[in-house]
Amino acid sequence: MANKSWNVLVTGGAGYIGSHTVLELLQANFEVVVIDNFSNAYKGNDNIKPECLLRVEKLTNKTVTFIQCDVTNWNELKDVFKKHEFHSVIHFAALKAVGESCEKPLEYYKTNVCGTLNLLSVMRDFNVKRFIYSSSATVYGIPEKLPLVENMKTGDCTNPYGKTKYMVEEVLKDLCTSDKEWSVISLRYFNPVGAHSSGQIGEDPNGVPNNLMPYIAQVSVGKREFLYVYGNDYDTHDGTGVRDYIHITDLAVGHVKAMIYQKIRNSTGFKVFNLGTGKGYSVLEVIRAFEKASGQKIPYKIVERRTGDISASYADASLANKELNWQATKNIDDMCLDTWKWQQNNPDGYKC
Amino acid sequence: MANKSWNVLVTGGAGYIGSHTVLELLQANFEVVVIDNFSNAYKGNDNIKPECLLRVEKLTNKTVTFIQCDVTNWNELKDVFKKHEFHSVIHFAALKAVGESCEKPLEYYKTNVCGTLNLLSVMRDFNVKRFIYSSSATVYGIPEKLPLVENMKTGDCTNPYGKTKYMVEEVLKDLCTSDKEWSVISLRYFNPVGAHSSGQIGEDPNGVPNNLMPYIAQVSVGKREFLYVYGNDYDTHDGTGVRDYIHITDLAVGHVKAMIYQKIRNSTGFKVFNLGTGKGYSVLEVIRAFEKASGQKIPYKIVERRTGDISASYADASLANKELNWQATKNIDDMCLDTWKWQQNNPDGYKC
Repeated sequence: MANKSWNVLVTGGAGYIGSHTVLELLQANFEVVVIDNFSNAYKGNDNIKPECLLRVEKLTNKTVTFIQCDVTNWNELKDVFKKHEFHSVIHFAALKAVGESCEKPLEYYKTNVCGTLNLLSVMRDFNVKRFIYSSSATVYGIPEKLPLVENMKTGDCTNPYGKTKYMVEEVLKDLCTSDKEWSVISLRYFNPVGAHSSGQIGEDPNGVPNNLMPYIAQVSVGKREFLYVYGNDYDTHDGTGVRDYIHITDLAVGHVKAMIYQKIRNSTGFKVFNLGTGKGYSVLEVIRAFEKASGQKIPYKIVERRTGDISASYADASLANKELNWQATKNIDDMCLDTWKWQQNNPDGYKC
Repeated sequence: MANKSWNVLVTGGAGYIGSHTVLELLQANFEVVVIDNFSNAYKGNDNIKPECLLRVEKLTNKTVTFIQCDVTNWNELKDVFKKHEFHSVIHFAALKAVGESCEKPLEYYKTNVCGTLNLLSVMRDFNVKRFIYSSSATVYGIPEKLPLVENMKTGDCTNPYGKTKYMVEEVLKDLCTSDKEWSVISLRYFNPVGAHSSGQIGEDPNGVPNNLMPYIAQVSVGKREFLYVYGNDYDTHDGTGVRDYIHITDLAVGHVKAMIYQKIRNSTGFKVFNLGTGKGYSVLEVIRAFEKASGQKIPYKIVERRTGDISASYADASLANKELNWQATKNIDDMCLDTWKWQQNNPDGYKC
């Protein structure tokens, strides 16, 4: 299906979603160049290539080219494009913590919006016009109804992080309207969790995890005493927030499928796909599933709602199935089991 | 009212609205530093200071400091802030042609959004946190009802230009939420027209004018044969589009009032004000008013609607009246008369 000479640039390829996607790309025989600025990735002992990519190379028995580069830096980016010829770009590089985005909005807008604009300009200058964008279900704002379908209204996001994702989608739409040569796919992720089934690569958050699953994982190995559950008075079956969790490997494969779609169909224009399982799980259900997978008790405390959190969100994922021939294959038990495996093997993430 | 030692940075101060605002600032005894990248301003014979600012200096008998600088350039901007201490920043520098924004969206997002983010970051680094932003009535998108009031919904803009104005307002809101020291006023302009009553400074569009009044002005002096009227089947009293035209001097004074408000009230947070007259005039009414003011016949042709144009837009300008003690003082006849005076004196703009 894939082709040896299809060269892909992956920005932010040393991050959580990036590294898992690189693994799937290599396994599908794509040539991969990764750029990353190490803002949220561990350098490791190699001192050149991030630890997660060394592990990806070991797992795949293939090599990936790595260049330290910040997408907001015009000159650095241009040098990457001068050195390498790309057929496609998958753009993960971004800041992603919702809470932090409220404290540091300028940093979020600069990195996520201006970084993307910078990348798109350089791509245009080098006539590389296939782009896969790392979007988010947060672009739907407060859902009017569920499940979320791609043609529903976007915007009215509740935090700067979500707004950056929304703004970039608007930029991409306008870009595709102005220049019919562009082929852009925006993938709206629901809640990526889990780790590669090898237990060798996974999520390695800096500091206190912002998301449920890595927090549970740290509680499970005794790194944190309690899990905080933010609100049990939501309008859901057990009162806790409901989300559409998706296994990171399913998500990574979604990117490969999207790229193959662009390549084989020679598609142009702006397209959007939800990447989710279509099933919602409450916080309490995730806790129970993790306890089952790990055999560990996860102590938790119910605390107040967090501002900006919505009660429930899950995808209608049928469009990706129909168009990209993609669907999630792993369930909540797989997600918990692989998280647990990764966390046990790597209690301090890549630093151990 | 004003104070000699109040130093104002005006970005894009060699443009149409910028130059008229600089004139009013100087007359109110503010110290003014202008930066501009000459992307839409005539350099003139001086070769250092733009022609419009030389005329502003002559009219006011005061001097303005000028520095050639691009707001998208971090190092250039930082140098300006190193050399000068500012109390307030008024930010005009932006691309502003709706049609062009559809053809070159990346340029518009980079200049208008990333340029502003760059400026805000440098301001923060130098602890300058009073900001007046050049916004637009286009942020209201397609009006649900008229007149437009500041607390109405924004977004759903019909072109990239409008989206850049909307996005920056969102950034400014988030910035003021994250850091309570900021004092930000966003001024939503309706349709600025006319020229300084001296006939010495005015609008000097590059190439074919994008807006009605400068186009009429060029027809009036024989530079163009016909005016094109885009659609006469709108749901308005004569079928042509209705807009709230505001005299450029009224608009300029609005900025001075906003700055004085920030200074005297020591206000913080994000505030928005419409700057308009509150009255709507149709295209045909503007043509008639211009014919009356100039004594010239304005030949016109009715052609198809332009995509993205809305039928009618006018302001509720009572908030600016109440809070800023500002209101428009000049009517449509003044606007046409001053445009005509400027155009007669300067048939080729500043180049003559």
